Formats: sequence, C-alpha cells, structure tokens
Amino acid sequence: MSFSLKILGSNAAIAAHHRHQTSQLLTMMQVPFLIDCGEGTQLRLKKFKIKSQRIDHILISHLHGDHYYGLMGLISSLHLYGRTKELNIYAPPGLKEIISIQLKYSQSSLNYKINYREWIPGKSELLFENVNLTVHSFPLDHRIDCSGFLFQEKPKKRRIKKGLLEKNISPLKIIALKDGKDVLDEDGNVLLENRKYTMEPAAQCSYAYCSDTKYTESILPYIKNVDILYHEATFMEDMRERAETTFHTTTRQAGEIAKKASVKKLLIGHFSTRYKELEPMLEETKSVFENSSLALEGETFTVE
Amino acid sequence: MSFSLKILGSNAAIAAHHRHQTSQLLTMMQVPFLIDCGEGTQLRLKKFKIKSQRIDHILISHLHGDHYYGLMGLISSLHLYGRTKELNIYAPPGLKEIISIQLKYSQSSLNYKINYREWIPGKSELLFENVNLTVHSFPLDHRIDCSGFLFQEKPKKRRIKKGLLEKNISPLKIIALKDGKDVLDEDGNVLLENRKYTMEPAAQCSYAYCSDTKYTESILPYIKNVDILYHEATFMEDMRERAETTFHTTTRQAGEIAKKASVKKLLIGHFSTRYKELEPMLEETKSVFENSSLALEGETFTVE
Repeated sequence: MSFSLKILGSNAAIAAHHRHQTSQLLTMMQVPFLIDCGEGTQLRLKKFKIKSQRIDHILISHLHGDHYYGLMGLISSLHLYGRTKELNIYAPPGLKEIISIQLKYSQSSLNYKINYREWIPGKSELLFENVNLTVHSFPLDHRIDCSGFLFQEKPKKRRIKKGLLEKNISPLKIIALKDGKDVLDEDGNVLLENRKYTMEPAAQCSYAYCSDTKYTESILPYIKNVDILYHEATFMEDMRERAETTFHTTTRQAGEIAKKASVKKLLIGHFSTRYKELEPMLEETKSVFENSSLALEGETFTVE
Repeated sequence: MSFSLKILGSNAAIAAHHRHQTSQLLTMMQVPFLIDCGEGTQLRLKKFKIKSQRIDHILISHLHGDHYYGLMGLISSLHLYGRTKELNIYAPPGLKEIISIQLKYSQSSLNYKINYREWIPGKSELLFENVNLTVHSFPLDHRIDCSGFLFQEKPKKRRIKKGLLEKNISPLKIIALKDGKDVLDEDGNVLLENRKYTMEPAAQCSYAYCSDTKYTESILPYIKNVDILYHEATFMEDMRERAETTFHTTTRQAGEIAKKASVKKLLIGHFSTRYKELEPMLEETKSVFENSSLALEGETFTVE
C-alpha cells in the first residue's frame, strides 16, 4: 500500500468517553511518521502493537498540551528501551527548550541524538524529503502558531506495457522510456515511440493533516486533491460562534473545505468532549461532503 | 478513618505489565494529597472515581519523568474543568520553571493560581500544617535531589471517660481535662483529678513515603514508628549491585529499613519492569519484615 494512517487519539483538550488526545501514525512508502503526541500516546502505540523504535520522525503541530504532553514520556521510554539511532522532531518554536529543560533537571543524557527541525510559523517549508516522498508544513489559523503537514509521494515514472518490448532490451532504453522519452537510433530516428510502449505513471498519493485551525480557505492550495484530508471539526454547526472565538472549525465547515479542495476523502477529528455520540457530527459533515469518516481511535485508513 | 492511601501507579521508569508510573493519593484527616504524578495519572484518578478537583495539594518527590510527566496534563485539565481555587505544589527546584515555560508557549493563563512551595534539597522542612496534621520533607539518597514526605497527625487531646462527670459540667473544665490538667477550686484544691476522669489520647497516625532512594539509614529518624511506610524496592536482592549504581533499593533492604524503623506496616513499590511477577519480590521482603504488602495499582490501604 502507498500509505496507511492509524488514529491513536482524536479527542480535543482532555481525554473523555474512552477517547484520548491527538496523535496519529502515518506510514507512507515504508516511512512511519508520528503526528502529534498527546498524553499517553506511548500506551496507545503499545496497545496497537506499533513498535515505537521504528519511528524516526515526529511532527508536532503546535504547543497546546493535548498535542504534545505525551512526547517527553515517549522520548524517555525510547532511551530506556535502548535507542541509539537519531530521532527527528519537526517542532514548533519553543519545543526544543521545553524538552531540553526537562532533560537538564532530570540530569539525563539520552543515548540517542534528537535533531530538531523547527518549522517557521506562517510559512510553508519542505521539512522532509527522501527518494519517494516529501513533507511540507503549511500555516493554519489557530490561537497560537500552528502548522499543518502535507505528505506527498513524488511524481512517478511512466510504466512499461507488458509483452511489447524485446527481451534483451538494454537498461538504458528502459530508463529512457520510463522517463517519457522516445528511444532513438544513431541517426536520430525513432526506434521505440514512448506512447506505444508506456502507460501513464501510477497516481501519486498524498495526505494532509490540519489540526487545530479555524475555517480558513488559505489552506486550499496546500491540500488540493489530496487522497485523504484530516481536518479538525471540534464543534457542530450550532456552535459556530464558539468555534470562531476558540479558533476551531465546525463539522459543516470541515466538509466545505474538503469540497472546495476537491479531496478524495475527509476524516474529521479533535472532537469536543461535549459530544459523547459522534454520529451526528459525521452526518453534518456528510451533508456537505459525502466521502467523510470519523477519525476514531484505533481505526486505520489506507490508500493503495 | 484516619487515613487512606490509594495506589495510582507503582511501576518504575516505564509503564509495563498493566502497571503505570508512580502516583498515590493519600487522604489524611479529610485532606487529599496527590504524591507524585506519572504520565496518565489523571486517567487513573478518573478510573478510580476520584474527583481531581478535590485535590489542593500535590507533592513531587523529584524530577525524573516517571514521577511527574502527568502533572502538566492534570494542571491543564483542572483548568479546563473550570477550577478557580488555588493549587499548592510542593516542588523540587526546577519544577516551577518547567511548568511556567509550557504555560508560556501555550499562551495559557490558568483560571486558578498555583502556589509553589519549593522544598530545599538535603533538608527536612515543614511543608504543610493545619489543625490536625503536618507534612514534612526529608532527604532521600538518589541520583538527583529527591525528597521523602512524612505525614503526621498532630498529638491528640486526652479522652473523657464516659459516665463519670456531672451532666452540667462547664465547657472550660472539659477543656482543662482534655488538655491533661486537673480541675481546681478557687483555693487551688483538686476538684477533678485528671487521671481519674480521662484516658490516654487516641494514637496519632502517620505515613511516610520514600521514593526513589538507595538504602540509607539516614532516613530512620524521620520514618520511626510510622503506621505505614511506603519504600521503593526497585530490584530483588540478587540485583543489589545494580540497585546501588542506580541509587535504588532492593526488596530485602526495604524490609531491613522497615524493621530498623519499627514501622507497623511496609508497602513496597517502584517495581522494575524486569519483574512481571511481583510475588517473589514480596516474599523476599517478608523474609525480613513480615507485615509487608505490594503497593499494587488500584489497592487501598487504610489506618483507623
């Protein structure tokens, strides 16, 4: 599969109704990314049998406690479990100071190195890149500096049609075809016409994470056409005023954003504790954008 | 009852075997004290149906994460639940800075005031006093500054024997008798001899909390004769060397301390994750001090 997303927690502010604070594990092209880390995230990783030592990349969206209070515990446990490989934390300004001061007072020196990559508030930046994918930050509109994250597979090569090429064709010619070029002879004549021997590349997959934010169309360029959009929907539509004053989004507004961005699927989360039952929230979102789901703790969403 | 002690967590370092990190709720003479606050303590409070808003006093023994990583989450939740009354934190040096920096970056101002009472490393001090009881710190011997806590009921008044005094005796005379004085007439003659009309005061109850520490007899003067001693016993006796280098105590040593201090009951806790089964730990402690129990999460110990 191209990516899978495991929801580790999606409640807002406090744990309630057997729901915990925000955290997700996205595994894209074999790379696991932990996104936000509410209190007790390490226990949910254990519960869902996810090996925390596999995680080399942690992204924190902002410094409200329900998105990072589990981070120090996880960092300590990784140390106690014997980690030596480096850990990359994509951090809001301030997080490094918060972690460092706690390590200082505990007189602990970790057996592994933490690389802090501080994202710049209000900007979109490339945070991570490997041969297969990129991760960008982009600004959300919350009470404090808050960043969304866009995970994108890189453009793929064209695919060779089966059974048309000679068996002993040279690798260089294959590469040329995959790159979209015709194969020419020494005189510049077309030997193999690309269109005839190749198909369109497989689709690139993409995932966008938006938590926490008020309704803002400024994010549309970043989340356009993604396979899955996670967008917070803290309140239902009748609480729109409260959503605005607290810099959050309603269920209906999340649907509107998904529609305007032409995403393939929408997940809503960051549910206010006032809602014990979540189905009415989903219904309200679906009335605007049909292909929506609740980001329920323990659920896995995959894109092939 | 004079006091009850609820164990909220007693595992060392990391959560494992369904055991969580250190936290206890002591309720002495109606006053609840939260002692240490490992990650997720607020969830255990909820699980055991303890109203967190009743807690006005939190004592932190030291700044290793397994003893305080749940504190920021609890502080935030108390705020979100609408707390306005002050919260008293008896803190190691540094904790105020750790809390303040996190509140600063979240741009949160709490609806209630936190009073920090920083205990001085290496000293025994009076931390809390009301009409019924006192709480003192005392130094433990750990890798970083670490404090034990002694909770003591104040000396009680003598008790009036029933049926011996006249019905209309004045309240002042009752007070004199309870204070251990004879009641005299105007000429100084003994009207009511104290010994005849009163009994010894009810016993004062006391609880001592020692976590984390290597074996040290320097704590004996503080914990002498307490009703319940909680003492860490991270390792079994065959790991004594490891206990010493990590500034911890063995099961056998905890028993020896209890015996030397002539305590009435010993609870052992702060169990290393290497021990899935705890009964062998208890047996080893009991071989030295019979009236010992495991401080198991969810258990309540009471003293009448």
